[in-house]
Amino acid sequence: MPQPIEELNQAVIQAEYAVRGAVVIRAGEIAADMKKNPSKYKYNRISYLNIGNPMASGLTPMKFTRDLISLCIAPHLLNNKDEDLLKLGYSQAVIERARLFMKQNPTGLGPYTHSKGYASIRQEVADFIKQRDGFESDPEHIFLSNGASSAIKDCIQLLAGPSAGKSAFMIPIPQYPLYSATLVMNSAMKVGYELDEANNWTLDVKILEKVYQTHQVEHPEVKIRALIVINPSNPCGAVLPGKIATEVIDFCAKHDIALFADEVYQENLYHPTKEEERSQFVSFKKTLREYELKNKCAGPMLLSFHSVSKGFTGECGLRGGYMEVVNAPAHIQDQLYKVASVSLCSNSIGQLAVSVMVNPPALAEYVDDAANKIATMERKAQMTYQILNANKHIDCQKVQGAMYAFPTLELPEAFVTECQNAGKLADNVYCMRLLEEEGICCVSGSGFLQKKNTWHLRMNILEQEELMPEVCKKMSEFHDRIWNQYQK
Amino acid sequence: MPQPIEELNQAVIQAEYAVRGAVVIRAGEIAADMKKNPSKYKYNRISYLNIGNPMASGLTPMKFTRDLISLCIAPHLLNNKDEDLLKLGYSQAVIERARLFMKQNPTGLGPYTHSKGYASIRQEVADFIKQRDGFESDPEHIFLSNGASSAIKDCIQLLAGPSAGKSAFMIPIPQYPLYSATLVMNSAMKVGYELDEANNWTLDVKILEKVYQTHQVEHPEVKIRALIVINPSNPCGAVLPGKIATEVIDFCAKHDIALFADEVYQENLYHPTKEEERSQFVSFKKTLREYELKNKCAGPMLLSFHSVSKGFTGECGLRGGYMEVVNAPAHIQDQLYKVASVSLCSNSIGQLAVSVMVNPPALAEYVDDAANKIATMERKAQMTYQILNANKHIDCQKVQGAMYAFPTLELPEAFVTECQNAGKLADNVYCMRLLEEEGICCVSGSGFLQKKNTWHLRMNILEQEELMPEVCKKMSEFHDRIWNQYQK
Repeated sequence: MPQPIEELNQAVIQAEYAVRGAVVIRAGEIAADMKKNPSKYKYNRISYLNIGNPMASGLTPMKFTRDLISLCIAPHLLNNKDEDLLKLGYSQAVIERARLFMKQNPTGLGPYTHSKGYASIRQEVADFIKQRDGFESDPEHIFLSNGASSAIKDCIQLLAGPSAGKSAFMIPIPQYPLYSATLVMNSAMKVGYELDEANNWTLDVKILEKVYQTHQVEHPEVKIRALIVINPSNPCGAVLPGKIATEVIDFCAKHDIALFADEVYQENLYHPTKEEERSQFVSFKKTLREYELKNKCAGPMLLSFHSVSKGFTGECGLRGGYMEVVNAPAHIQDQLYKVASVSLCSNSIGQLAVSVMVNPPALAEYVDDAANKIATMERKAQMTYQILNANKHIDCQKVQGAMYAFPTLELPEAFVTECQNAGKLADNVYCMRLLEEEGICCVSGSGFLQKKNTWHLRMNILEQEELMPEVCKKMSEFHDRIWNQYQK
Repeated sequence: MPQPIEELNQAVIQAEYAVRGAVVIRAGEIAADMKKNPSKYKYNRISYLNIGNPMASGLTPMKFTRDLISLCIAPHLLNNKDEDLLKLGYSQAVIERARLFMKQNPTGLGPYTHSKGYASIRQEVADFIKQRDGFESDPEHIFLSNGASSAIKDCIQLLAGPSAGKSAFMIPIPQYPLYSATLVMNSAMKVGYELDEANNWTLDVKILEKVYQTHQVEHPEVKIRALIVINPSNPCGAVLPGKIATEVIDFCAKHDIALFADEVYQENLYHPTKEEERSQFVSFKKTLREYELKNKCAGPMLLSFHSVSKGFTGECGLRGGYMEVVNAPAHIQDQLYKVASVSLCSNSIGQLAVSVMVNPPALAEYVDDAANKIATMERKAQMTYQILNANKHIDCQKVQGAMYAFPTLELPEAFVTECQNAGKLADNVYCMRLLEEEGICCVSGSGFLQKKNTWHLRMNILEQEELMPEVCKKMSEFHDRIWNQYQK
């Protein structure tokens, strides 16, 4: 008999990953069935709002990124005359950039790279960070990774010590399921701090402090290793003001814990409404260095993450990302390097996509395309807020950044009770019905560990712009239907 | 103070990864110093024989693979007239294949793929396996992965349960350090079975049985979960005869344990010498199905792994690979899928490279290029054996397959004693000296957990062909020098 489930790694068994959970699996089944029995459904396609996967919803690629990869993966193309390449649609700038990459890396994209990634690209990342923040960055402290998730997983695994059950990590509530799943898989404790929904999902350092102190009393044997902050926020769409970022650094310094800064949405910044200012992103690296200058002391260890999957790049499939490791002692740098070595290296194409993200060409068409893409997401973010929030039983915060809205669903008591009696969570039932009845695939708030007895869903704002109002309206009408059905 | 080393995850700290260990780090330092002080060294480049990274040693890419990626990553190219693409060097076959891929996958390479990988490519893998083995393969049981290593790590993590220290895995001695490192990181026990060096590194099922029984007596509380077999063998270069493969299946069936079949070198098959037959690869999947037919029973669970990093493809940087999960109960399939979901998906370009590997074009130039590449490796494998084995103090087995030789180094007692007195292993000192004095970077046998008090090194056979005899000769001369120095 093969290994029964109770004999498998229980830390893995217990991990949950809602973003691709039951509702999504059902969506796949419906999509398949719809091809055979289209008349069975009142919709003719499924809106996949469950995952931040922009190119699946029609985001077009940045041409420069794609053309650069196209040339570097087939470097024999560079032996052609420029005019022949130009004729096919390659720009002069991309041809030159490809020649430069191949000169810096004569063996190209084929070999395993350095386990931390190409030296030339790590230098570009360091230059980008310096330019963004005004503070030096050391390319030796940059690790290129398969998206951000692989680097995050490696860091949690390393810090979750010295043995199972001895470490805790503070995660936002609501959080992104990668964190809960990875913590469970590493037998580390999740210590949740609630974001303040009433205040546009603000992070409140007083809550951090209270949660920390309570943990110390309740679990003195389980050390808190790190605070995890996602800014701009997934799933809440909030952007952290610089003042609060400084308080966060101070909190980590005071308690001598590391800070994980998940900053993959740093380019997704919107005017929350047409009348309001565009949100501003301030990196934790910058905040940290300013804090250190002001306080004349070394701040906490910072692990900050970025990715080509988000922003206007949206190259989820290429799995490119980087991590900057700041204020880490040599033994932690060394161990992270060793762990990266066991996986040999992150994929070379993802690394090249990082190169373009951090060192974009000075081309008007690139800049314009990027701005247009963000502007489109912004319009959809505003629509989502406006349409959903107009429903008196839905409370949707303004989307300041990232790619998601996380509205509160006020639900009729009778519906909630019926779900409870069936042993189910109301938001899970709600999302499954929303899929079945409207073909709209979202993730329920409980998948993000949102507060008990509050009901939310996470939806991305990535649906095609012309379909977006209709999708939001259908969601609002579905919500009304639930109310009509249960409020008698 | 940041988390001290004793407070980090000790399972990670204890893991070792020799392939990119101390000797390799020193090689990097020398390479950097050599640029500044070339006259300090009697060599003008370093031969990196430490890692199976063929394109770093001059292997050229398969043009079809590269051209397909080049077109699919920039699909606007396909809007050009075929004649313009042909003029740049794309073949008609690759243009058509790119059109087919984009038709099957209209959103292309940008989005996250299904967590198991593109359905179209999993179908190609299943077709390849069926054609190779003569038995059905189910695309739902195929998982595309970032190289083979990520899939191997996921499987070990899942089976290493139910809690830390309760599971053991049988690994070959010598083994590939990915296994030892991953097992240590998952707090699983390594149970080594020795390959028989005197018999060209044969796997002997009697030894498996003895090791298994001894383990049962010594650690009855630690269940053996799986047997790991690497065929063709890394680091030994041996190819497993079909008869022994059947015995291995029988062993796993009898003890009800899973079989990990690391078959990433299945295309690296050589005539060990010019006079001998070319080695034959028989997959464990085929052996398993034949075993089941003959014995009218279900055989053990099989997890078999393949990669685009090896063979004649050699695309290490692209991180493409697949796993086939055979005879696994639904709960294991489901958990593997969940774990894959947490990482979202493997990189899309690596998946496309897998597509070409398993479904190559029917082009004479592709077939010829592949054959030439294997023939070149074969000549280098033969050279390595002949030159090293000619040294009376080196015993080098014939290289039947894979990309490595793993010669025994007979060492003067005085040298071994001197190393021991310095608290070091003789093979580690040897490899460091070989690097310092000759610029040749190898990995010592102890990194592969080879038997105590035997001395080996692992070297790849990938050095450029015209340099290979000289490199082997320098190794042999260095060996003589050690003997001259210590045998007085």
